[in-house]
Amino acid sequence: MSIVICLFYFIVATAAKNAIEDRNKLLERELKMMLGSDISLSDSEMKANDIIMDLKIKELDYAFHHPQTFNLSKHFFDYKDEVEDTELFKLLQQMPKGAVLHAHDTGLLSPDYVLELTYMKDLYVCFQKGQVQFLFSENIPKTPCAVKWQLLSDARLSSSNVEKFDADLRKHFTLVVSNPKEVYSDVNAAWRKFQQYFITTGPLLSYKPVWEQYFYDTLKAFREDNVMYIEIRSVLPELYDLDGNVYDSVETALIYKEVLDRFMEDYPDFYGAKLIYAPFRMVDTKTVKKYIDIAKEIKRLAPDFLAGFDLVGQEDIGAPTKDFLSELEEAKSELDFFFHAGETNWYGTSSDENLLDVIALDTKRIGHAFALIKHPVLLEEVKKRGIALEVNVVSNVVLKLVDDVRNHPLAAFLAQDLPVVLSSDDPGVWEATPLTHDFYVTFLGVASRHADLKMLKKLALNSLYYSTYPNKDKIVHEFEIRWTKFIDNIVKDKW
Amino acid sequence: MSIVICLFYFIVATAAKNAIEDRNKLLERELKMMLGSDISLSDSEMKANDIIMDLKIKELDYAFHHPQTFNLSKHFFDYKDEVEDTELFKLLQQMPKGAVLHAHDTGLLSPDYVLELTYMKDLYVCFQKGQVQFLFSENIPKTPCAVKWQLLSDARLSSSNVEKFDADLRKHFTLVVSNPKEVYSDVNAAWRKFQQYFITTGPLLSYKPVWEQYFYDTLKAFREDNVMYIEIRSVLPELYDLDGNVYDSVETALIYKEVLDRFMEDYPDFYGAKLIYAPFRMVDTKTVKKYIDIAKEIKRLAPDFLAGFDLVGQEDIGAPTKDFLSELEEAKSELDFFFHAGETNWYGTSSDENLLDVIALDTKRIGHAFALIKHPVLLEEVKKRGIALEVNVVSNVVLKLVDDVRNHPLAAFLAQDLPVVLSSDDPGVWEATPLTHDFYVTFLGVASRHADLKMLKKLALNSLYYSTYPNKDKIVHEFEIRWTKFIDNIVKDKW
Repeated sequence: MSIVICLFYFIVATAAKNAIEDRNKLLERELKMMLGSDISLSDSEMKANDIIMDLKIKELDYAFHHPQTFNLSKHFFDYKDEVEDTELFKLLQQMPKGAVLHAHDTGLLSPDYVLELTYMKDLYVCFQKGQVQFLFSENIPKTPCAVKWQLLSDARLSSSNVEKFDADLRKHFTLVVSNPKEVYSDVNAAWRKFQQYFITTGPLLSYKPVWEQYFYDTLKAFREDNVMYIEIRSVLPELYDLDGNVYDSVETALIYKEVLDRFMEDYPDFYGAKLIYAPFRMVDTKTVKKYIDIAKEIKRLAPDFLAGFDLVGQEDIGAPTKDFLSELEEAKSELDFFFHAGETNWYGTSSDENLLDVIALDTKRIGHAFALIKHPVLLEEVKKRGIALEVNVVSNVVLKLVDDVRNHPLAAFLAQDLPVVLSSDDPGVWEATPLTHDFYVTFLGVASRHADLKMLKKLALNSLYYSTYPNKDKIVHEFEIRWTKFIDNIVKDKW
Repeated sequence: MSIVICLFYFIVATAAKNAIEDRNKLLERELKMMLGSDISLSDSEMKANDIIMDLKIKELDYAFHHPQTFNLSKHFFDYKDEVEDTELFKLLQQMPKGAVLHAHDTGLLSPDYVLELTYMKDLYVCFQKGQVQFLFSENIPKTPCAVKWQLLSDARLSSSNVEKFDADLRKHFTLVVSNPKEVYSDVNAAWRKFQQYFITTGPLLSYKPVWEQYFYDTLKAFREDNVMYIEIRSVLPELYDLDGNVYDSVETALIYKEVLDRFMEDYPDFYGAKLIYAPFRMVDTKTVKKYIDIAKEIKRLAPDFLAGFDLVGQEDIGAPTKDFLSELEEAKSELDFFFHAGETNWYGTSSDENLLDVIALDTKRIGHAFALIKHPVLLEEVKKRGIALEVNVVSNVVLKLVDDVRNHPLAAFLAQDLPVVLSSDDPGVWEATPLTHDFYVTFLGVASRHADLKMLKKLALNSLYYSTYPNKDKIVHEFEIRWTKFIDNIVKDKW
């Protein structure tokens, strides 16, 4: 009898061991596949990793049992300030984060910065129908204004309350509100306000002296957030000055280049910037042809500065990429593409299928690629062709693609080690730091509980690897030096 | 010169053609992979498909340009009644939908049905602290009540307003509210109210005569929604009657079986039901062992009626499946498993990793599998092992996994032809039809704009194929007969 019982327990124990073995093997296979799993950590990195993971796990495990406390499943506006005080955020701020490869010209600096610009002299303002119009001018502008043009300094002075005047003005320079879910009820509502930001700030920021300063200060802000290099997308608007000069898109590009050169002289530890010319997509094919000519001209004049070409604007609205396929295909041999695609949660629509077009056009990277998760063939192609995905989680929350970042498709992209780079799109418009918030939200809110320093390092390295920076060895080498210093600081508790 | 120009245009035209060809090939590959793509439509089906797709495309394309009008990106409670009036909904109601493989005992019929039960005689009620307690009894119940037990008929009669009394009572039988996003602010808030529904209705529905009637009427309701066969999950509570008898879980299962036999005599066109014994997961291993013994006993007494075993309850809270791995592994040879797993949007946590355990335990199907999209290895395994995914989109919205169904991972499951079956979980608790709402939301809100009648048919066929109905040929044959009739009715405009 006892032999029978023993045998029985032996069978049970073996069977149980098998199930545990099976599940652990499945888990191991997944962890080995995950983005960052090919990174080996040094002893110091392992120590730093323990510190980082301790911060992460503590927060996650509490939230798992108290989901109502988990900030990151709420709207970004509800927690963005609060998380800045956490140790994990501060640590990520210190982390060398590599490059920013998806960021738009005038959406990068805070509303406070833009407000400060309105203290400049020669700025005229026209308040009408809840909107505000700006223009730098020596005399009263001749462009139409339903009410009246006045010097902004006069308007401010004659207001009964300067603080309130500035606070009201500032509202035009941000999407942040206290009740985002009500104000931004759908994707179009969010985009309307988003586009209004660019319309409002356009004449303010395209004043040549401001344009130059804004770009200089952008580079500075990104450098301070521990970014080494950026690829900036710009619509390249016409710039103007007080002497009546107008600078066309090609000239605007060259002005960018001049500012960059100056910045690099002042901050030689920065690794520079390149331009992706990214004009509006809501145009006809004739205009796209013109765009391509402009891009080619910039390339001719500043071949090292122009990274390539893109089209911007809300994908769901206006022409799909397919409409310009012929023109773009023609330009392919001369220009590198970095197209936006799949910034939508419609499935099977023309905007969703921009993903097909940009891959057919041999795009080097895809901006957003949010919808890619619904495209098994394209997921394979992206991996096979080494097309990087420029993922902007915070942007996708603010512009209403997803409410809870835990449902962001980036989680699945990371799980299968797709070539992901993190970016921040227009962090100034939603009052985020240049890149740290996106890393924080991804690390804590999107990635697996298991994702650790290896993933963080790989994301930073990806941003260098998939950039068009010409000397990868050099920039990666410098990254490694900064990374080692960062790790040492963590281990020595100096961050 | 003209030859050069001609040659130039020829090159351009060829190149352009290539890009179009490429994108179309990529699209074709995806459409060929999609769930339902292996179905061939007859001429009649093609005509019906045109009608269905016309309804779908019209609605989708309008919503694409006016996203604020798109009901299905809102909360289910905000549109569930409205969509019932659409032609597409009515058409889907008529559609033979195959089987329901994921539905829970007492969550299936509407609050109006439950309210009606409170008009039965011998029902006592105890109102206390905003909650309500019920008990059928010949005399005043002896179980504790903070205020007082009274006959419900007396309480109703002595209320100043019967309509209001009933409306207040009805609130305990539904999760539907007019402001769902405020009331159900997080997953725990939703689950609390959800669990309270089962606690409140428990003593009402576990009264043996009610239990029998409820199951009979469930079968009727599902049959009327054009479901042929169901696999019902039950916690198998103890039942009671006025004579003081108490019926244990095994007896409750046999009572189910008796009701089913009676129903099948009354409605021989129905294809029957099987039971998945699914007790609460928030227990210790000793209790799980007891559960397994109960399941084995039911299997011994009614081998054709018991489909298998599962565990229920909020996965994020309480013990992960891993804790019972040994006990479950031991039972594997005798019981088929149909486990819930991955009903979570946490990633890398114990509830997320229940997916690993249930696959290691050779589960036949996975209930929900919401988190599976983040598990590339498991996605492969599920396909390789033919493990069906019981997806419950509406449930996932109501129980706070996802706000906008367009972001439901089901879209990706359908895209890669995973073995999906649609189900409705607890449609009575959120006032949905037995299965039509889930088909409607999936077809219009989740699946690709390209998904058509082929996908609908395949989903229905999947539900039969992945069921445990013993004679697949027979049930599929009957399905085909009903399907042909359904198609004829559409084509003849008779639906």
